[in-house]
Amino acid sequence: MNSKYKTIKYKKNKSTNLEDQVSIEEPLEMAVRYKKNNEWIDNSISITMRTPKNDEDLIVGLLFCEGIIHNISEIKKVELLGDKVGKFDLQNKIRATLNSGENLNIKNLRRNFLTNSSCGVCGKTSMDSLEIICKTKINKDSPKIKSSLITKIPDLLRKSQSEFSKTGGIHASALFNKEGKPLVTKEDVGRHNALDKVIGYSLKNSIFDTQNQFIACSGRLSFELVQKTLMANIGFLMGVGAPTSLAIDLAKRFDMTLIGFAKSDGFNVYCGENRIVE
Amino acid sequence: MNSKYKTIKYKKNKSTNLEDQVSIEEPLEMAVRYKKNNEWIDNSISITMRTPKNDEDLIVGLLFCEGIIHNISEIKKVELLGDKVGKFDLQNKIRATLNSGENLNIKNLRRNFLTNSSCGVCGKTSMDSLEIICKTKINKDSPKIKSSLITKIPDLLRKSQSEFSKTGGIHASALFNKEGKPLVTKEDVGRHNALDKVIGYSLKNSIFDTQNQFIACSGRLSFELVQKTLMANIGFLMGVGAPTSLAIDLAKRFDMTLIGFAKSDGFNVYCGENRIVE
Repeated sequence: MNSKYKTIKYKKNKSTNLEDQVSIEEPLEMAVRYKKNNEWIDNSISITMRTPKNDEDLIVGLLFCEGIIHNISEIKKVELLGDKVGKFDLQNKIRATLNSGENLNIKNLRRNFLTNSSCGVCGKTSMDSLEIICKTKINKDSPKIKSSLITKIPDLLRKSQSEFSKTGGIHASALFNKEGKPLVTKEDVGRHNALDKVIGYSLKNSIFDTQNQFIACSGRLSFELVQKTLMANIGFLMGVGAPTSLAIDLAKRFDMTLIGFAKSDGFNVYCGENRIVE
Repeated sequence: MNSKYKTIKYKKNKSTNLEDQVSIEEPLEMAVRYKKNNEWIDNSISITMRTPKNDEDLIVGLLFCEGIIHNISEIKKVELLGDKVGKFDLQNKIRATLNSGENLNIKNLRRNFLTNSSCGVCGKTSMDSLEIICKTKINKDSPKIKSSLITKIPDLLRKSQSEFSKTGGIHASALFNKEGKPLVTKEDVGRHNALDKVIGYSLKNSIFDTQNQFIACSGRLSFELVQKTLMANIGFLMGVGAPTSLAIDLAKRFDMTLIGFAKSDGFNVYCGENRIVE
């Protein structure tokens, strides 16, 4: 989703008035409703800055990646709420109603849900809690991918994006099958939102077949992109940009394949090189 | 701050083992201590994923940008806490003790401090609160900048970075004077941390002279980078990447100059073009 803005373009000492297509960034308040001891409880848990239009995918993906739900069937319904506001006439609140809240740890819920435009791990009040969720997951077999395919992915990812060519300013994540076909591509001004949307959409539409799939991201690879990929049980993540130290450490710990600086003429492998074949 | 990681580099069908310098990403727990009704109160308010080593600049900048302090003199001391942990042997907790907490609104404090690697505005539990702080600030006169200087800034910014050439994966923000001299450059895996560090360092060292300065950032321009620039009373912000819709809307509202896609041969001006001169 983008919008036109008046812009003055300076190029080689000449200025031109034009209209520029700009990626939309708007806050989304996310909430969960659940029943506990026969009483409905509403928790407003986060505001994230996101690019609108895939809000249901976003909240489903986030709930799953934070370990609040483990299966799409735990969600009874998702509703956009509130009046349409702002210049884009959007409903900026969304609420997921869960089938049961009896086993929900509210403290964890509140701690986990303080996310925003680039990091799903913030707001946790203890260092130790950072990896708690990941510890419960073990990566299954992941596909072996040809090195000649890996160098094609940045181009395939970009071609699967609808917004980037218009605005030049939006991140993308995509789920690919092992033959290099993009199955789901989602875009967002926030890197982690794009990946949450991919995971949420894939869950809703039963697209995951994790032994035959990998994930590619348009930007740098942070701890939390690795964390989300692990939560989705995908063992192969590549990015166009650089990984951080913690991204590599986490990927190593779970025997994941992590590729950075993926370009048309090469890439760097930080761990899991056994899954790369000629 | 970076660390070496073993990497396999694939380039034109050849693979080479090498060591890659990788930007460090580690969680930092931030806390505030203050006295209220003659009692010391400690509030653990946030964990952010950051690149270590400028943690004091980071917490000072964040406290200021979130409107918790209005002057550096309100901070009594800043301490790194806890044992040295993890593979980088770091203290990952930091606490700012304030001279007075009598006027501190704890509810606002907790709401404001839920930040992370890319967004200072998350965790606020109401849409309406997003711009509350900015409403109290009005941008003063900002310098006029020559268009020929603007095209030089991306190169000057990169040259002032110490980490980027090593790791290829770190954001930078810098405070420049109107002649194009970088006064403070800070780097971080999180865009908003880099800007918080610039603002914190500038406050601590009394570097701000806002009528003669502007800020440049290495990446895209989000709402919160504009918000932080406004809090620092700087009216001129440029970035190498694309702005978001909300970044432009906020900059317009405060009559700020906002420049995106700054490159050696040109740039786009989204608002405040009166401050650009031949």
